[in-house]
Amino acid sequence: MNAIALRKALHQIPEIAFEEHQTKALLLKTLQDIPGITDDSWKLHEFRHSTGILIAYNGGEGAYKLFRADMDALPIKETVSSPYPSQHEGFMHACGHDVHMAILMGLMQQIALDKPATNLLFLFQPAEEGKGGAQSVLAEDIIQSYKIHSACALHVASGLPVGTISSKAGIFFGIPQEFDVRFHGKASHVAYPEQGINALHAGLDFTNKIHTAVNEISKTDRVIYHIGKMSAGDIRNIIPALCTLEGTHRSLKKQVRDKLNRLTYDFANTCAAAIGATAEVELLCSYDAVVNDAYLVQQLESACQALKLDYQQAETAMTGEDFGFFTTLYPGVLFWLGSGCDAPLHSDKFLPKDECIATGIKLMHHLALQ
Amino acid sequence: MNAIALRKALHQIPEIAFEEHQTKALLLKTLQDIPGITDDSWKLHEFRHSTGILIAYNGGEGAYKLFRADMDALPIKETVSSPYPSQHEGFMHACGHDVHMAILMGLMQQIALDKPATNLLFLFQPAEEGKGGAQSVLAEDIIQSYKIHSACALHVASGLPVGTISSKAGIFFGIPQEFDVRFHGKASHVAYPEQGINALHAGLDFTNKIHTAVNEISKTDRVIYHIGKMSAGDIRNIIPALCTLEGTHRSLKKQVRDKLNRLTYDFANTCAAAIGATAEVELLCSYDAVVNDAYLVQQLESACQALKLDYQQAETAMTGEDFGFFTTLYPGVLFWLGSGCDAPLHSDKFLPKDECIATGIKLMHHLALQ
Repeated sequence: MNAIALRKALHQIPEIAFEEHQTKALLLKTLQDIPGITDDSWKLHEFRHSTGILIAYNGGEGAYKLFRADMDALPIKETVSSPYPSQHEGFMHACGHDVHMAILMGLMQQIALDKPATNLLFLFQPAEEGKGGAQSVLAEDIIQSYKIHSACALHVASGLPVGTISSKAGIFFGIPQEFDVRFHGKASHVAYPEQGINALHAGLDFTNKIHTAVNEISKTDRVIYHIGKMSAGDIRNIIPALCTLEGTHRSLKKQVRDKLNRLTYDFANTCAAAIGATAEVELLCSYDAVVNDAYLVQQLESACQALKLDYQQAETAMTGEDFGFFTTLYPGVLFWLGSGCDAPLHSDKFLPKDECIATGIKLMHHLALQ
Repeated sequence: MNAIALRKALHQIPEIAFEEHQTKALLLKTLQDIPGITDDSWKLHEFRHSTGILIAYNGGEGAYKLFRADMDALPIKETVSSPYPSQHEGFMHACGHDVHMAILMGLMQQIALDKPATNLLFLFQPAEEGKGGAQSVLAEDIIQSYKIHSACALHVASGLPVGTISSKAGIFFGIPQEFDVRFHGKASHVAYPEQGINALHAGLDFTNKIHTAVNEISKTDRVIYHIGKMSAGDIRNIIPALCTLEGTHRSLKKQVRDKLNRLTYDFANTCAAAIGATAEVELLCSYDAVVNDAYLVQQLESACQALKLDYQQAETAMTGEDFGFFTTLYPGVLFWLGSGCDAPLHSDKFLPKDECIATGIKLMHHLALQ
């Protein structure tokens, strides 16, 4: 199956983080059809604790260049019309990971034809969407058993035409930190507020104080502190006994991330204590920043020049990408691949054009052999 | 069926506002068994637009004293144990209206025996719990076809022993005003907040501004401004496109109520406009204050003295009671009837003692003949 056909097949079977079983089966089946894949120069690893797959190509000497594609989809109901719609109602490849996998497979098919005298790793990584897929595969120490030269990944970009590539040296994607804060008070009738403890008041006090503190921090550091979901109380004339906040913050340095986490704990506790409520803070998923190696970005630029692709300097994005765990361990580069689609990532209308797949394969192939 | 048996039967068939059909049927059946009820001195009215019932007793000359009981229950799952538990799963007489109806029926049974030379009205009123039952029955102009001397009602009180009565002249219950505020923004990914409009920010700004304004008002007027339910956003890393607040405020004067309503509109609109969001404000149910007539409260006190009931001066309560619509039209008196139960009103454990029923009948009977 060629890369475009694979993309269409993958697009129809979107599966969420760590549930990519049909996806993995289709990838394994497609791999089997690659001529020469059973030769000694190829080795396939299946991860024990997830659906991840690592394929090593040993064609020469020296360290391995790692190419990574993420596998998971999102719990979003697809509304964009295509000839290959999601067959999994309520789920959708709204972040383009179907395209990423197709490109990685296309790259391997090309390498299998070329048989270059170099060493390469191809990683299908599960659960990029906030579930710790990169950490999970790294925890199995299979990747680390290879000497790694560098790590490379791409991400389809909304609002960039096909044939345009964009990246930057240094911090490319920030550090996301998901968190929950819950305030527990005591219900009572609105006419007798003195009998209750208003959990919503603690929540409102918390949002005010943390936003003020974040305003101060933002004078010197780029940060986003965001409450994406807030919920308190059930009945209008009852004092809310519970207030829950679900949020994520973004920063560019680990010490700023840690400071925001400390402030979250501190303000939650002081705002709760001030009215006799209690607070629970739960720190959830966090990624390392994606820090692009300056030399690899130069190589990317020269590859674009050679392939007559338009290269644009990118802005640092406050999105998170667990590819950051790879750039912490190895020299790495992540780049935007123009998708020809203007609908935003994670929207129910996001659908990259097929044509970007050839661009992705061509560019990664060039980087592999560079 | 005597009053206590009726209370137990009513307690088992709780029905919410304007749905009191089984309740009405049981009341009508019990009325039929009152000896002499078909005599010319009695007249029964059924309201056309609700389950309400008005019974007139014409035993003498002059204006009618109106006695009113409310009929509806609450959507609360009963957890208190009793030999006559709710048979309507998820519904409960958690505000004691079963007791109020039983007392009114017991009063009529007593009047039917006494046949006093006076004129009385007995009103079973639906939908006291925030649904406008008093307004509905008054809108039918049946009550107004009688010349009314005064209106009297009681409410079972939590935390007062059986045999204790409590009330006060002047404003007894405040003015409740229910309201909804909805802010509409625009969703976007947290990393691109400039593409979105954060409805939660408008909601937080609104709560801050209105609470500051209410603090000012509370220097001169007793007010409660309460958000009982707040909800914004669905997903932690998305800018909330919708923020909804459900609240109720309480005040003692109509001009303060109106001022709070104006501030709700004004702050909702300015907080929305400040960030390009839009606001919707919906004013829902509001009651008149319950204002007790000073002379009728004196009469109540002397009745308590005569009957050796403990009378206590009450505080003005910030609860609402649609009996306020009667005290706006007629000289009226509402009083607390000690229930012998300490669990709060509207709690799933509220269960007035049977013994308070005899007290209620005795006291209302005294007031009827006074």
